[in-house]
Amino acid sequence: MSYGMQLLDAYPRTFNVDAGVLAATIDALNDCAQACTADADDDLSEQNVAEMVKCIRLCMDCADVCQAMVGVISRQTEYDANVTRPLLEACASTCKSCGDECDRHAMMHEHCRITAQACRRGEQAFRELLAAMK
Amino acid sequence: MSYGMQLLDAYPRTFNVDAGVLAATIDALNDCAQACTADADDDLSEQNVAEMVKCIRLCMDCADVCQAMVGVISRQTEYDANVTRPLLEACASTCKSCGDECDRHAMMHEHCRITAQACRRGEQAFRELLAAMK
Amino acid sequence: MSYGMQLLDAYPRTFNVDAGVLAATIDALNDCAQACTADADDDLSEQNVAEMVKCIRLCMDCADVCQAMVGVISRQTEYDANVTRPLLEACASTCKSCGDECDRHAMMHEHCRITAQACRRGEQAFRELLAAMK
Amino acid sequence: MSYGMQLLDAYPRTFNVDAGVLAATIDALNDCAQACTADADDDLSEQNVAEMVKCIRLCMDCADVCQAMVGVISRQTEYDANVTRPLLEACASTCKSCGDECDRHAMMHEHCRITAQACRRGEQAFRELLAAMK
Repeated sequence: MSYGMQLLDAYPRTFNVDAGVLAATIDALNDCAQACTADADDDLSEQNVAEMVKCIRLCMDCADVCQAMVGVISRQTEYDANVTRPLLEACASTCKSCGDECDRHAMMHEHCRITAQACRRGEQAFRELLAAMK
Repeated sequence: MSYGMQLLDAYPRTFNVDAGVLAATIDALNDCAQACTADADDDLSEQNVAEMVKCIRLCMDCADVCQAMVGVISRQTEYDANVTRPLLEACASTCKSCGDECDRHAMMHEHCRITAQACRRGEQAFRELLAAMK
Repeated sequence: MSYGMQLLDAYPRTFNVDAGVLAATIDALNDCAQACTADADDDLSEQNVAEMVKCIRLCMDCADVCQAMVGVISRQTEYDANVTRPLLEACASTCKSCGDECDRHAMMHEHCRITAQACRRGEQAFRELLAAMK
Repeated sequence: MSYGMQLLDAYPRTFNVDAGVLAATIDALNDCAQACTADADDDLSEQNVAEMVKCIRLCMDCADVCQAMVGVISRQTEYDANVTRPLLEACASTCKSCGDECDRHAMMHEHCRITAQACRRGEQAFRELLAAMK
């Protein structure tokens, strides 16, 4: 069991959302942030780095955004829907843009193929958490 | 002149937005992140910490979100409106919620009064950048 | 296989360290950052929040530091030992201090017991990566 | 007066260090993080991006590290020297390495010249805070 799930089990109050959905989202965003950080670095090591600039840039954005959101959704105390809901929608768009760009390089670079997957899972996780919060 | 403005002056390409508006936004978000980080810590030092929990929590969210956005809007290369616009709108809401909560404690705690100001400036900066991008 | 390990497999150059050790460190630091973020929030929800202030504070430090280090060690391109080695040593101390504080509350709060474990693993992971870089 | 200084003035307890030195360090690290984030992006926009890879990588490290340290030193509550001192020393090394690399490109790229300055100020600020803590 991941630390995310263990800590949700040990949370002293009740939740606003299903703990399983929340833990899965936290894991997916951590994976996405991690993959995007690594992919930006992989791109910098490629021969065709000049063609990878957009991918590098979107990976840095996506990593920053997913990392910030892991913080926001990990905080269940005094939950505020006005903060969380618009952020979840916006971040799903970030994952989508980054995943689309990674996909464009997936045939040439295996690391972009893997990262595109992580972005798709991140986008889906944002949307599932949004649905669970309704 | 701030480093933000100096570096925008030295940027090798053209921008999508007015450099003055962009630099002002970056400064306002840095200030807001900084104030929220300090305010969360100030709250933890107060006698009535149990009543400050919501404020601490929103300050942590607002700091994380503003810090991530400084990264996103500082990156002008291969700018992608699908990423930036929804994030700017969502982050304006975060600043608003955090500023509202800080305001509730402004009479009792000077640090909350100052931070509420920083959040208002942050919110306004997000909205001005959005308007400038139209 | 974690995204960390998959992406190291797909890295276009050679490494400075054993990829298995590196991937294990990245996973341990991600877990530690995540646990500390959650534990700070759990502490804020406790009745005895005033007694948890040191734990909250150290958890925030440890989360910030581990998250930054995931970025630094994920970047293998143009690796610079002068940057990485002192940071690894300093961050091991952060994990140790945070783990010690969490341990003090482990009997009373299950979430602190779990987070103490994550900090111990984080500390050990920093030390193993340091040893592997010798 | 910066938000950093205003909030230190409003802090409810006493400090471990001179508030002026602390506020100057926070400002210098914020500036350095900001300059490094912008410089990494500027480098990505340059024609000779392949020659800028080391500079991009170190700027990303330096930004991550300075940003994390703004959090750590902004937290004065329950200050722990075992956490702060080794981090300050390690981060001074990060600023030095990044400043050295930026300097190498200062003649060709104005943005690297400006960022080298911000790194020098960051390094010095870390060392002055360390000295003030003795």
